[in-house]
Amino acid sequence: MCLSIFCIDFQSENITKRLMETYDFLIIGAGCAGASAGMYASRMSLKTAMLATMPGGLITSTHLVENWPGIKSISGPDLAANIVDHATTFGAKLINETAKEIEQVKLSTEDEAAGKKPGFIVRTSSGEYAGKTLLLATGSEHRKLDVPGEKELENKGVSYCALCDAAFYRDKVVAVVGGGDSAAKEGLLLAEQCSKVYIIARKTLHPEPINLEKVHEHSKIELIENAQVDEILGEEKVEKIRLKDGKELDVDGVFVAVGLLPESELAGKLGVELTDRGYIKTNRKSETSVPGVYAAGDVTDLMFKQAITGSAEAVTASFWAFEYLKHNEVVVGQVVAN
Amino acid sequence: MCLSIFCIDFQSENITKRLMETYDFLIIGAGCAGASAGMYASRMSLKTAMLATMPGGLITSTHLVENWPGIKSISGPDLAANIVDHATTFGAKLINETAKEIEQVKLSTEDEAAGKKPGFIVRTSSGEYAGKTLLLATGSEHRKLDVPGEKELENKGVSYCALCDAAFYRDKVVAVVGGGDSAAKEGLLLAEQCSKVYIIARKTLHPEPINLEKVHEHSKIELIENAQVDEILGEEKVEKIRLKDGKELDVDGVFVAVGLLPESELAGKLGVELTDRGYIKTNRKSETSVPGVYAAGDVTDLMFKQAITGSAEAVTASFWAFEYLKHNEVVVGQVVAN
Repeated sequence: MCLSIFCIDFQSENITKRLMETYDFLIIGAGCAGASAGMYASRMSLKTAMLATMPGGLITSTHLVENWPGIKSISGPDLAANIVDHATTFGAKLINETAKEIEQVKLSTEDEAAGKKPGFIVRTSSGEYAGKTLLLATGSEHRKLDVPGEKELENKGVSYCALCDAAFYRDKVVAVVGGGDSAAKEGLLLAEQCSKVYIIARKTLHPEPINLEKVHEHSKIELIENAQVDEILGEEKVEKIRLKDGKELDVDGVFVAVGLLPESELAGKLGVELTDRGYIKTNRKSETSVPGVYAAGDVTDLMFKQAITGSAEAVTASFWAFEYLKHNEVVVGQVVAN
Repeated sequence: MCLSIFCIDFQSENITKRLMETYDFLIIGAGCAGASAGMYASRMSLKTAMLATMPGGLITSTHLVENWPGIKSISGPDLAANIVDHATTFGAKLINETAKEIEQVKLSTEDEAAGKKPGFIVRTSSGEYAGKTLLLATGSEHRKLDVPGEKELENKGVSYCALCDAAFYRDKVVAVVGGGDSAAKEGLLLAEQCSKVYIIARKTLHPEPINLEKVHEHSKIELIENAQVDEILGEEKVEKIRLKDGKELDVDGVFVAVGLLPESELAGKLGVELTDRGYIKTNRKSETSVPGVYAAGDVTDLMFKQAITGSAEAVTASFWAFEYLKHNEVVVGQVVAN
């Protein structure tokens, strides 16, 4: 293992030197939150990079965003692209790699005595990057339904993104499973193309009121409440869905919209404090429990999560990272051979 | 005093009935924060109004906004207008009146025993409005320099808004007084038109680094640090500025950019808890110390204030007001004659 600026690879027979780039502010993720922070941090002249193989994040699977203040209507992918572009325009670097591991630099006794602070090393499959401060803007992933047939028929009729896959179901019958705003929005989007859309909610459907109205008014949508999916059936592809009460529905596709899970595994391993449900605990400065590590967006414990609140958390993080760097000397380059 | 839906004016000899409009969510202010809340609350089907004689708020005096995520460059007035338009499109009402007084409804013993909550009455110079919940998004005003000549020469060379007044100083010499980001931005804007711009900072100039660079690079800007203005001099209009060390500068205009003061007088009178410096204390739900009253934007105690953070605070407020109304019965119509 190697934590120096000039990284010596002890695994190879020939000792080689690889240059590891060091950033003032290293962002894991480049969704609305990560990219907003990238833009702000760059404007504050912090050397900033965003590590992400899926720039734009989860909002890229949203058909229409109509609640980004100041923009009445924009596609999710366009909004995300605009923010990422905004960040790179001001100098943030987008690195198309996925963070696999994060480690805090171990300080020497002298550095510790001198009050210096440890930086962080982030490893991807193809490189290592040093960050004097980190922003965890890793977002969330789609929660699974966890019923027989779901895994087997994924991409054979089982989908987690109407925007991505709706076109495959033109004039066909689909079911959306879920009770929140996403379920309603997925249903409405699918109803534009499909011949019929069931929305199956475990209790009641409870989206934003404006979307509930639209669901009720839509002739192609049939709402089935107080119902649970027992199994997804089909040989080569989805054919049926069976509910807990035994009722079967013939469908060509199943769209699962039962919520999100925070992508906080890396954070947990780094020792960042999480809630019982796996969200990163943050305060109003977007600080986590580890000094120099900030978090923003869907991965945090903020209760009401929106693209705009994640963006503001991220902007806040970039400011407090800037302040942290102004007042602390951070060590990132230290050889630790093992 | 009168707190009923049908408001009886006891001041007049003829007792008249005036209809007082009741809103689920009544917003005082329509800047970036207030209007963002207006948009969200309306989407959540709350009956929403924004009370403001200056829709758009203080950002309308900003020349260029380049840090609203997703919009690389937009004028302050345009950004504000877009957000206000976004809010009214979804149904929020813009009422062009200034709130003069806010009062909490006094509950009857029965209502109190039944666990009902008091709403609020907001008085303007021309009407009364009832709000089941309130959002205080009253923003801030320009802090004064408080030196001789400032008041006397206001609008005769003393200004608080370069964007508004720069055009009067084409090819003239001006001074900007202040050390923060606003001072730098005002200076840069003025340097586009003026022949020379002094920026006078009490200690050092400490704007966003990107703006500090621009100031240093600009040939027309002369930075005077560790200097204090003692007096603004002139007969009919500004002629000179005198510094504490006795040095005098010939100038045609003085732009004061020494910070902001929260507009929290109404909040204080309502009994909302303020910080020592007059900012409204809020939590992560944007709640104030008074149940049903929320605050967002420049008037709150959030330390790092930006348009985007105020907007997110406001969006958060609208959600928690929605939740509050779902779980509480709020009384707004009650006659209290005195």
